[in-house]
Amino acid sequence: MVKSRLEAFTDGVIAIIITILVLNLNPPEKTDFSALLGLSHVFLVYVVSFLTLAVYWNNHHHMFQAVKVVTGKILWLNILFLFCISLFPFTTAWLGENLLSRTAQITYGALMLAADIVWVFLARELVREHSKESSLAKSLKGSKKSAYTIGAVLCGLAVGWFWPPAVMIGCLLSLLPWIVPDKQIESLMRTEQAEHD
Amino acid sequence: MVKSRLEAFTDGVIAIIITILVLNLNPPEKTDFSALLGLSHVFLVYVVSFLTLAVYWNNHHHMFQAVKVVTGKILWLNILFLFCISLFPFTTAWLGENLLSRTAQITYGALMLAADIVWVFLARELVREHSKESSLAKSLKGSKKSAYTIGAVLCGLAVGWFWPPAVMIGCLLSLLPWIVPDKQIESLMRTEQAEHD
Amino acid sequence: MVKSRLEAFTDGVIAIIITILVLNLNPPEKTDFSALLGLSHVFLVYVVSFLTLAVYWNNHHHMFQAVKVVTGKILWLNILFLFCISLFPFTTAWLGENLLSRTAQITYGALMLAADIVWVFLARELVREHSKESSLAKSLKGSKKSAYTIGAVLCGLAVGWFWPPAVMIGCLLSLLPWIVPDKQIESLMRTEQAEHD
Amino acid sequence: MVKSRLEAFTDGVIAIIITILVLNLNPPEKTDFSALLGLSHVFLVYVVSFLTLAVYWNNHHHMFQAVKVVTGKILWLNILFLFCISLFPFTTAWLGENLLSRTAQITYGALMLAADIVWVFLARELVREHSKESSLAKSLKGSKKSAYTIGAVLCGLAVGWFWPPAVMIGCLLSLLPWIVPDKQIESLMRTEQAEHD
Repeated sequence: MVKSRLEAFTDGVIAIIITILVLNLNPPEKTDFSALLGLSHVFLVYVVSFLTLAVYWNNHHHMFQAVKVVTGKILWLNILFLFCISLFPFTTAWLGENLLSRTAQITYGALMLAADIVWVFLARELVREHSKESSLAKSLKGSKKSAYTIGAVLCGLAVGWFWPPAVMIGCLLSLLPWIVPDKQIESLMRTEQAEHD
Repeated sequence: MVKSRLEAFTDGVIAIIITILVLNLNPPEKTDFSALLGLSHVFLVYVVSFLTLAVYWNNHHHMFQAVKVVTGKILWLNILFLFCISLFPFTTAWLGENLLSRTAQITYGALMLAADIVWVFLARELVREHSKESSLAKSLKGSKKSAYTIGAVLCGLAVGWFWPPAVMIGCLLSLLPWIVPDKQIESLMRTEQAEHD
Repeated sequence: MVKSRLEAFTDGVIAIIITILVLNLNPPEKTDFSALLGLSHVFLVYVVSFLTLAVYWNNHHHMFQAVKVVTGKILWLNILFLFCISLFPFTTAWLGENLLSRTAQITYGALMLAADIVWVFLARELVREHSKESSLAKSLKGSKKSAYTIGAVLCGLAVGWFWPPAVMIGCLLSLLPWIVPDKQIESLMRTEQAEHD
Repeated sequence: MVKSRLEAFTDGVIAIIITILVLNLNPPEKTDFSALLGLSHVFLVYVVSFLTLAVYWNNHHHMFQAVKVVTGKILWLNILFLFCISLFPFTTAWLGENLLSRTAQITYGALMLAADIVWVFLARELVREHSKESSLAKSLKGSKKSAYTIGAVLCGLAVGWFWPPAVMIGCLLSLLPWIVPDKQIESLMRTEQAEHD
């Protein structure tokens, strides 16, 4: 029960954040297609943030499928994760208006980096709380995705210091391996269940 | 479990979008009935968008009743669908202020067309994943509703190029067959269940 | 299952509406207590709307407890009800800024009247779909609350034409019998259950 | 069932409030780090409010785990609690812009005090409705946390009259014992369950 309420709360918060992002997309005052095109940079950042949040939701969902115990530490790491993504509408709005600004790009990337790092700690804590033999531990142990993700965002930030748009490209690239959620967890859970039968 | 969390997330996102639409309905500064009447065009577009989202929610709900398997592709088509409708508050606000603008009308209609097309792909994918004999496949195979819907929006867009309000009329007409959800799915599921007993 | 998803969607929409009401409570520019007191009329209307929505949620919850069948008509009456209350943030914001305006008061009261009337139709449809012997039918048949509620709002609107604040007073009075949800439904359901055992 | 819907509604409202807090974090017009630093006071209050709401959610969740009966009085105390926290976005926005204002600080603290007092009444009512021998009663009876919390906020308010920032510090200190939810409830429930077996 604890787990289901944590999942429901997380889903609720992500659903609200992903939706209020659009409140930054203010309709243009003029009504020709060029006015709409003038919003393309705001729209671009909107797409990246929407995709990122969808990836987080999808993989959060996936990671918790194998979870059996929710401790206080897991709860608070999850809340810290939600805190990080709660700031997405802010960085998205700022970056949307200033796509070429180094400061806005770095802030956007730094927030995503923070969320990714909290994610890693959350995943580690989940593994620690479950027996080493559990399917969750098995599937997360070998996962090199998180290292890649954090690396991609860090590279984006480093290059972005000289050429700001690199941050967004790094953020986008960091999502790639997460689009398809961890097949390992699914297959391991099936094996485990089969062994039980 | 995967299915129920996807349904809950979709319901949450639709509930939030349908509700933040109203944030575009700014109270008039004056306080006579003519000031209220001045908002009638904004209100009109609000009603159409509210109705559209209610229809989507209702039929999404209905379509997933018969679903048993949720694959990664279904998940991402669903997220793409949510992305399309997440832009409704934007097009609704723009069209509300510019009811006779060709650009605003075409943008509004194009977004609805995009959502409808993603819906068709989502329904197709659901059928493909379920056995051809399943009630879902049976009920969706013969459905000509989607073709009608896309046709209605396309006609609206074509006429709207010359007479903008046609887009909204096309969108409204496209909803008609969906007001009553697919009775076929319900009756087929009952038959299937009866055969099992 | 149909019923639980309708309940969840309704709860979600009411939770969002009740929460975005507060977005109209803009912090004053000055920072003394008199600036805060200057918001008292906005706050007053906020309290009434919050209370109304809480009463609706509470009683919706109660009414659907005894529901077993959800038809298309029930679904659409429920959506029409949600549409009415989705406009609460609009009328609340307008009335908050114009507490003594006849137009704002009448609009506020008229919306509540509309919601109450849809509620009556929804309750009727629920009774019609369930057998006359069902606990729902029994408990709703004798209910005179709805008549009182609509009467109170109508009186408020009539007096409000000459003295605007009467509308809000009528709305508040109309809520009184609903603060305590229908004990009849609860006791009848218990009786029914006892008979089954 | 009554309990689960009340929990779901409460979770929904808290999730929305915790998320719309960020709407007050408006992106700066300039795009250098000093512009971002200029928002640090708004951000600081955001963090405190986010943490407070997370603590409320976490402990609400915990307190209701042991609840078996939901009466009308419990329902309304819960709604009164939700009403208090629904005003958090307002006080957060005001305090964020006026961190050193005595009025804004006192208003912020007074609202938190009100929420804490309603919490105490809610906890008391929950105990009264459950048998004195129940695990809920046992675990709440000895709890001195609430007294500490209210004391901390009151001290903050008293000192804040002379040095405004003391209010926020008092609010923060009042949260400390709630970061770790009541272990007593968990251990008592386990004991109770063990006795049943």
